[in-house]
Amino acid sequence: MIRTRSGTGEMDETSESTAEPTPEPTPEPTTAHRRRFLKRTTIAMAGASLASTVVAEPDGVPPSWRKPGEPLRNYGVPTADRPDVIRWIASHPSVPGDGVSFTPLHAMAGSLTPNGLHFERHHNGVPTLSADTYRLHLDGLIRRAASLGVDDLNRLPLHSRIAFIECGGNSTALWRPEPMQAQVGQLHGLVSCAEWTGVGLTTLLEAHGGLRAGARWLIADGYDSAGITASLPLDTLPDDTLVALYQNGEPLRPENGYPVRLVIPGWEGVRQVKWLRRLHLADRPAMSRYDTVSYTDRHPDGTATRFSNLMDVKSVIVSPSPGAEPVPIGQVEVRGLAWSGAGSIDRVDISIDGGTRWVPAELQQPVRDRALTAFRVAWHRGPTDAILMSRARDSAGHVQPTRSVLLDTQGPSAFYHYNAITAWGVDRGGRVSHVYA
Amino acid sequence: MIRTRSGTGEMDETSESTAEPTPEPTPEPTTAHRRRFLKRTTIAMAGASLASTVVAEPDGVPPSWRKPGEPLRNYGVPTADRPDVIRWIASHPSVPGDGVSFTPLHAMAGSLTPNGLHFERHHNGVPTLSADTYRLHLDGLIRRAASLGVDDLNRLPLHSRIAFIECGGNSTALWRPEPMQAQVGQLHGLVSCAEWTGVGLTTLLEAHGGLRAGARWLIADGYDSAGITASLPLDTLPDDTLVALYQNGEPLRPENGYPVRLVIPGWEGVRQVKWLRRLHLADRPAMSRYDTVSYTDRHPDGTATRFSNLMDVKSVIVSPSPGAEPVPIGQVEVRGLAWSGAGSIDRVDISIDGGTRWVPAELQQPVRDRALTAFRVAWHRGPTDAILMSRARDSAGHVQPTRSVLLDTQGPSAFYHYNAITAWGVDRGGRVSHVYA
Repeated sequence: MIRTRSGTGEMDETSESTAEPTPEPTPEPTTAHRRRFLKRTTIAMAGASLASTVVAEPDGVPPSWRKPGEPLRNYGVPTADRPDVIRWIASHPSVPGDGVSFTPLHAMAGSLTPNGLHFERHHNGVPTLSADTYRLHLDGLIRRAASLGVDDLNRLPLHSRIAFIECGGNSTALWRPEPMQAQVGQLHGLVSCAEWTGVGLTTLLEAHGGLRAGARWLIADGYDSAGITASLPLDTLPDDTLVALYQNGEPLRPENGYPVRLVIPGWEGVRQVKWLRRLHLADRPAMSRYDTVSYTDRHPDGTATRFSNLMDVKSVIVSPSPGAEPVPIGQVEVRGLAWSGAGSIDRVDISIDGGTRWVPAELQQPVRDRALTAFRVAWHRGPTDAILMSRARDSAGHVQPTRSVLLDTQGPSAFYHYNAITAWGVDRGGRVSHVYA
Repeated sequence: MIRTRSGTGEMDETSESTAEPTPEPTPEPTTAHRRRFLKRTTIAMAGASLASTVVAEPDGVPPSWRKPGEPLRNYGVPTADRPDVIRWIASHPSVPGDGVSFTPLHAMAGSLTPNGLHFERHHNGVPTLSADTYRLHLDGLIRRAASLGVDDLNRLPLHSRIAFIECGGNSTALWRPEPMQAQVGQLHGLVSCAEWTGVGLTTLLEAHGGLRAGARWLIADGYDSAGITASLPLDTLPDDTLVALYQNGEPLRPENGYPVRLVIPGWEGVRQVKWLRRLHLADRPAMSRYDTVSYTDRHPDGTATRFSNLMDVKSVIVSPSPGAEPVPIGQVEVRGLAWSGAGSIDRVDISIDGGTRWVPAELQQPVRDRALTAFRVAWHRGPTDAILMSRARDSAGHVQPTRSVLLDTQGPSAFYHYNAITAWGVDRGGRVSHVYA
């Protein structure tokens, strides 16, 4: 039931009368009706504190009432009124289909990503596959090897979960010595979140007799021409790993692995092999190019970490953010997203002074395990400079590091797994820029 | 961690050896490697019980490895491989934009609906609106009347919730005396489920000083040319009613009310006014055409129920279902969706004998309040006839009625709010048809 502060039978001193309003017989506004709105509105204006325009009444017949609208469609498309709500593409000039497209986090709200805006990272483009001829090969140290079609998978129990996927190279521009000026989506938009539905990997393995002795690694490769091969250690692979067929209810999108992909909640994107061709159970990793040359973390002392599968705790403020309209003086909503591969978001703190003082943000409920979590806090902005930061803590107790701590530990040659606190400078005029602070 | 039944160090009698496999130095398959797979697979085949094709190894270099794939895109589109996964349109032959398009539930899985497949019900088409000129008029028995732009709304706290929306006329074909033969989506697909993000109605009203004395109804109308006007009683309107701006993360789709619509979790679709033009607080309903002539439930005794806002508890089996391939003998997954406007789904029972015996289905976790809930159960089908049914119970204790009970209470002139148990007949050959049972 809707009951606002003044709606619980309390008297309202701005009313014309304490009695119930005189009945009005017409269901549509009449001239008399309009005069009453006008009078009330005049009274109410004295107390108005919001910056919104107060009008006497809706201004006549809107043009859209004068003609029928557009027809029904078999498959909907986004509004043409928001051509800015698109993925921003950065691709290799000479390698076809090698690149990324970023989810426009700055133009969105909520915790899910619609399928058309899910980020992309392809190493050699999107293969065109048919469910009719598709086969998933299951072999190696499994009791019963098999070659499965899409229909075979659909005959097994299907389960769903909402999970984020983040590219290991997300936010890599922030390793640069100078802060890159770009929109949030262009800096941090290689992360998206969807409901994935498919067959549990454990279910699939058990339906084929289970593992054979010595199985320690799952080696997954894809049907794309990039030679993607990911070696996945069974001892840490999440129990809820899915062989996914559906994304937000519909068959996977081509760029998200149609017809079948791995979804490994919380792990680096490249491990969640798209266009899944083969699941090979083995006693050792394949040590493929994607296990070794790339997606490996180099450290200042010359060593490197391979198989750094888990994505770290992270957050970013999406509004206010660089590229948007100047922030007004007065009450401002600060909104953002937080996530962690290790579990759920426990809290997010916000600072407006570059990290000296922190206040807790409100987390959108329910907070989901290994999914994007929206947060918000109201900020009463004065006519002074500010530096906005968000700092997330996850259910495993991990806290987002400052940039200087991350640089100290990961050093100048790092490329992947940037998860430090991001800072937005807001000047007196409300203009927002990316700063290192 | 992944540990299947035979993976916990247990010996596997189909292995060639009980020792750890001999190390193989090459990360990619070699001829020797392939021979071993072949040998293992031959052994494993003896124990195979699934109907899947077992192959010796992946069959050579797939064509998709021979050339780069398709490039990155600013906004993704569904796979061309599944042209059947579209909305089915039924529209009035002479009234432009008056019709429905059905979500293809039979071709989907999970509990969310991607934006392009969310059902439509328009009475006179989709208006083309611009966020730049859009205004939401708030007036009547509110302390401070206002006219708000999209930016004004975005400056208020935004909250999200996953909620289904169902048209009051969903499943209306099932009132017919003979069972219509059609796919699930064409019978029951005027229901969809998405994450909606916007300003809480209560927050919006309080930001404008709250209700004035005597406010009992919220009268909402839209910018479309159909004259949609919905009178909403404040005493039962859910606290979590949203003035929504975003759908699954992106701005609302045009057909879902861009730029602003009402979302009233659990209520009849027509009440959740799209292209929202005005929120007028009043002491009485408008008694508009949509309050009276349509979306009113006529009863056998000549009386009628108006403002039957809450959608009833309901479920439907989406697989197996009419129009699909014949159901094989053996283990079959029975999958479906359940929902209720009164709360969450408490349980779903499945019958294969037309309602004599029932077994509980597994509900996909987490079960969400007033959202689509997926369920499943394994069915060992024999070579006999069967009648499949699903029966949902919600957290308020409401149970889906049988068709005969619904007909007895609602009578032959009913058109809206069909929520009886749906039955699929499966003949000995596995062919599925819609039956009344």
